[in-house]
Amino acid sequence: MKLKQFQSHLQKEGIDLVFLIHPDSNIIYFTQMKPSFAFLLITPDTASLYLSKLDMPPSVKNLSVISLRKDWEKKASDPKVKKIGINKSSISLAYVEKLQKMYPHAKLIDISLTLNELRAQKTPDEIQKITKACSITSQAFNSLINKFSSKKFKTERDVAFFLEKFIREHDAELAFPTIVGSGKNSAVPHHVTGSSKLQKGFLQLDFGASYKNYCSDMSRSLYIGKPTAAEKDHYNLLHTAQTEPIKAVTLNKPFTELDKISRKHLGKYSSYFIHSLGHGVGVEIHEAPSFSEEAKQTIKQNHIFTIEPGIYFPGKYGIRIEDTLLFDGKAKILTTSPKELVILK
Amino acid sequence: MKLKQFQSHLQKEGIDLVFLIHPDSNIIYFTQMKPSFAFLLITPDTASLYLSKLDMPPSVKNLSVISLRKDWEKKASDPKVKKIGINKSSISLAYVEKLQKMYPHAKLIDISLTLNELRAQKTPDEIQKITKACSITSQAFNSLINKFSSKKFKTERDVAFFLEKFIREHDAELAFPTIVGSGKNSAVPHHVTGSSKLQKGFLQLDFGASYKNYCSDMSRSLYIGKPTAAEKDHYNLLHTAQTEPIKAVTLNKPFTELDKISRKHLGKYSSYFIHSLGHGVGVEIHEAPSFSEEAKQTIKQNHIFTIEPGIYFPGKYGIRIEDTLLFDGKAKILTTSPKELVILK
Repeated sequence: MKLKQFQSHLQKEGIDLVFLIHPDSNIIYFTQMKPSFAFLLITPDTASLYLSKLDMPPSVKNLSVISLRKDWEKKASDPKVKKIGINKSSISLAYVEKLQKMYPHAKLIDISLTLNELRAQKTPDEIQKITKACSITSQAFNSLINKFSSKKFKTERDVAFFLEKFIREHDAELAFPTIVGSGKNSAVPHHVTGSSKLQKGFLQLDFGASYKNYCSDMSRSLYIGKPTAAEKDHYNLLHTAQTEPIKAVTLNKPFTELDKISRKHLGKYSSYFIHSLGHGVGVEIHEAPSFSEEAKQTIKQNHIFTIEPGIYFPGKYGIRIEDTLLFDGKAKILTTSPKELVILK
Repeated sequence: MKLKQFQSHLQKEGIDLVFLIHPDSNIIYFTQMKPSFAFLLITPDTASLYLSKLDMPPSVKNLSVISLRKDWEKKASDPKVKKIGINKSSISLAYVEKLQKMYPHAKLIDISLTLNELRAQKTPDEIQKITKACSITSQAFNSLINKFSSKKFKTERDVAFFLEKFIREHDAELAFPTIVGSGKNSAVPHHVTGSSKLQKGFLQLDFGASYKNYCSDMSRSLYIGKPTAAEKDHYNLLHTAQTEPIKAVTLNKPFTELDKISRKHLGKYSSYFIHSLGHGVGVEIHEAPSFSEEAKQTIKQNHIFTIEPGIYFPGKYGIRIEDTLLFDGKAKILTTSPKELVILK
């Protein structure tokens, strides 16, 4: 959490005030809580959280908490404010208009890129939390494969529930809705876990814990029954396409290069890899750094991101292997569960 | 789901196109799914969902599904479009600017109020789904009080987990993060359920199931141990302050009147009732109708809403009783769990 650095940036840029409005993940970032409703006002010297009385105030250094009242607009208004920072990709038009009314002479400036960049390079405290979230996630997976039995686990939901119970019992929450796809459901990357019966073939998992508001993200493909030679080949190819880009991780390398390496290894199967190779992870499950061509981002010290190639044969099956990694001079895999194809009986 | 009615409104108002962008709950409303990312374009005659390839397309009548691609902006652009409807309270400034670039000659018009109003009065299908969600919620509560034992339930999280498991096993999801507050935690209306040990005194629950994307919302206060006479009095007073406004529910009555009735019954304790009496429930846990003074809303046929007074003594304890109700000529309580104070041992 880099409030001081952010405030220095405001000072340098002559931004009088930054206005963050629920639901903006930057509020979670700066307050280390998930309020049900809040505004966060940051100036070069102060940070004030306007919080509903329904929530428990956080105890964060240098953050003052003000009870949110109907007259917050009057209180927040200040005619000296000339330059207001906003998060353009989150603030709604309704609040932009409210701000323009409150500060008719101020100029609105997008600070989302600055915040994204700041958040992408994690602090030691954030690294510790994400490492812990990844460790809980890996343990949940390991426990699942140890305890799996076709008697106890009959549906996709049974598998999801086992993982989620494990996560919750380890003082964490879910980072996002757990994906468990059996058989042809595994071919839909964002399959909605349901009451489908587990069947022979690939079983795709994609899940993560959130520890003290910091996320982890891991995918593994399991197999129920006996895989065919072709299925094994596809899995092994994907495995290589996941480990090779990790080997290529070095400082300042463009993320698009990692993507190219993975696709090169997938060869003719790369047309079945229908999403990007990865994304940053933090208080949001998807945050900076971005792997997109347009973003032109490169690997920096203390970036935390995923590497997750997949192959999806529509209507048949899909496989995806995903780790969350820290770059601290070299690539360090935080989700340590085994990546050999696990055969379940 | 009232796509046809909404399209008639567009026709009447001369709105060429409505642009809804993730995450807008109206997308859930019209598609009956929760996409990971999507745009929904509605004209007086058509409805097109631009969906990521990672999601499974929904099968909804009169809705065509288009694969979301990088060139969606070109495809969606149409110089004949002069009047575009947007949801001002959800669309981000970044997307407003994108729209203005795509349609430089079009006027943007806020259609959020129309959508709120449309959604507030539920269809038979929606009533059925919410009734089912409420029934699962009530059953979960009833099962908890039957199975409660201080040996099995040691922490707030144990209680939450029991309720959530029940909900999930009944083909539903959580409508929102379950609130379980024991002892002084019950005094924080939006307490974050944690590993706090259950202690003697009030145990506040606030939870709900979401069945096929439709929510339910229920709160109950339990007591562990033997309540004092004062505690019993507070509970009974609250009970009256919850049932009396329900008795007063009639067509066209302003929601603020229900609020007044509840506060009148709370008497000197009404200053400890720090939130509004209720809110509408649908695909969102909080949606129209609004109980606020400003909204000036009145009870209409097929409104579904909560009645939930609370008394919170900061640092001591809090109690809240909440039901989800349907108005179909008279008030019908959908969350049928008992409201007498349940004493747990």
